[in-house]
Parts: sequence; C-alpha cells; structure tokens
Amino acid sequence: MRAEYINPFVRSLNTTFRTMLSLEVARGRMWLQDGATTLHEVSGVIGLSGKAVGSVILSLSQDVAIRAASQMLMTEINEVNDDVTDAVGELANMVAGAAKAELEEYEMSVSLPSIITGTNHHIHFPTNVQPICIEFTTEWGPLMLEVGLTEARVPAMA
Amino acid sequence: MRAEYINPFVRSLNTTFRTMLSLEVARGRMWLQDGATTLHEVSGVIGLSGKAVGSVILSLSQDVAIRAASQMLMTEINEVNDDVTDAVGELANMVAGAAKAELEEYEMSVSLPSIITGTNHHIHFPTNVQPICIEFTTEWGPLMLEVGLTEARVPAMA
Repeated sequence: MRAEYINPFVRSLNTTFRTMLSLEVARGRMWLQDGATTLHEVSGVIGLSGKAVGSVILSLSQDVAIRAASQMLMTEINEVNDDVTDAVGELANMVAGAAKAELEEYEMSVSLPSIITGTNHHIHFPTNVQPICIEFTTEWGPLMLEVGLTEARVPAMA
Repeated sequence: MRAEYINPFVRSLNTTFRTMLSLEVARGRMWLQDGATTLHEVSGVIGLSGKAVGSVILSLSQDVAIRAASQMLMTEINEVNDDVTDAVGELANMVAGAAKAELEEYEMSVSLPSIITGTNHHIHFPTNVQPICIEFTTEWGPLMLEVGLTEARVPAMA
C-alpha cells in the first residue's frame, strides 16, 4: 500500500472526532500489518472502490463507542445497542468520506458500513494487500484505524 | 431492501460453489434481518457501491472454510490460516462479482474483501437498511449469505 493513501484518513479521523465529539485523538504506534488484526469491541468496516480499491476499518473500544454514541445522540447510553452500532457506522462513513474526497484522483466511492461487534475476533485483508494500522488514544479509551488500498486491477474482458 | 436484489446473489453463490468446489448448497431459512447477525467462524465482507450501495457477507463455518481452501489450493489444510482467509475472500468476491454483473443497471463496483475470523461476534447493518439473510447447508457444514443494499443517496453538494 502506498504511504500517500494513509494521511488523508488520519487527518479525516482527527477532524471527525474533533467536530462530532469534541474529542482529541493522539496518534500512537503505526505499522504495516502482516496477518490478522485484533479488533476492539465495535468496528465499522467500509469498502472503497474506484481506481483504487480497499477497505477502511475504524475500531473502537466499547467505552469509546458508547460515549461517542451518547454524545452524538445527546442521551446517556450504557450498552452496545443499535444506536451505538449506527453511530460507529456513521463515524466510519465520515472518516472514509472525507478521506476519499482528498484522494479524488482515485475516483473512489464508498459502500455502506458494516459494523462488527463482540470480542475475540480478527480482521484480515487479502494477503496481496498490506494494510497500515494506526493506534490512537483518547481520554475515553483506545481506538484503531486500519486502511488497506491497492490500485484497481484492469477489469477482465467479459 | 428490494427482493429483486437477492436472487442474483443466491444464483451466484450456487454457481460459485458448484464450479469452484464441486459442492452443492441447499437453501434453508431466509429472513429479513432485524438487528445483529451471528456469524460463522470465517466471513468475507464485500462493499458494493454505485447506484445502489451496500454489503455482501459470505459466512462459512470453520469446516466449510478449511475444506473450501483445501480444495481450491489442492492441498490439505487443517486450521484457519492465511490460505483459508484468502480463499474465503476470493469466494465472497466471486459471489459479489457475478451478482453485480446481473444487477448491471445499478452500475455497482466491489471493494476488496475483508475477512473476519473468530467466534462470538456479530455483524450489523445501519438500522435504515434491512438486509436479507439466507442459511445454506452443504455436506461440509453450514454457511450463510447476508445482503443489504439500498438505493444510493444523491451526493450532497460539495
């Protein structure tokens, strides 16, 4: 994966969390992922397709997900419910949407978010794609961003 | 979700499993999903975007995933490793790819597959999308297909 892909996602994560949640995120470790990534409890997965294809995953610890949803809906939420999964899907959508706007030369469009919840699970990219993972810390808890993109293959002849 | 969306995915799943794995799948229960879907141990998630947007999830029990990869690679595999996650991603990609070709009026493109592994986890769609789930049985074990698509929103003005 080309390094130029990642910065728009990091900027867009910073902006999304600051404007939607008034929450500052501090960037931690960044690495090229080789193999499975262990997810936090609530993760939004968004597909990207166009001249580059891939996925972006925004994975939040349970506390961050619940507090984010509480703040977005201005109500107190105490468990991972539909409001929380919708909120995490919407945050993932905003992060992916703003980043793709910066990467306009790839003419990407975004899919709907899928939201994965639970513990003890992992996400994998196809082994020919090496995604970048970045940890972040916030005063609510940890989160993670994983982005894997590759130039689109030329479509096979029909 | 419009019912016309689902049949191309069912046909394409049948064809993919028959041609790639020489495996017949028998359709079981089908339902409109409301809330979380419990996944099998290895699931491929593919985003679709175009005039309709959404996701397709092909979720395989561990035995089906391992035997599918063994057959595709013509080697014996005994655990969920990178070969297995790649094989499940490729199967999900084939199912989504053939179905989108049938749904050409929606001009959809597919993202890369993300593959989720583990136990005790669930997948959710945004609550404004009601996906369709279909169970299948095979002689290797069970699998599940979930498809959620919605007409694309008109993009907001920049």
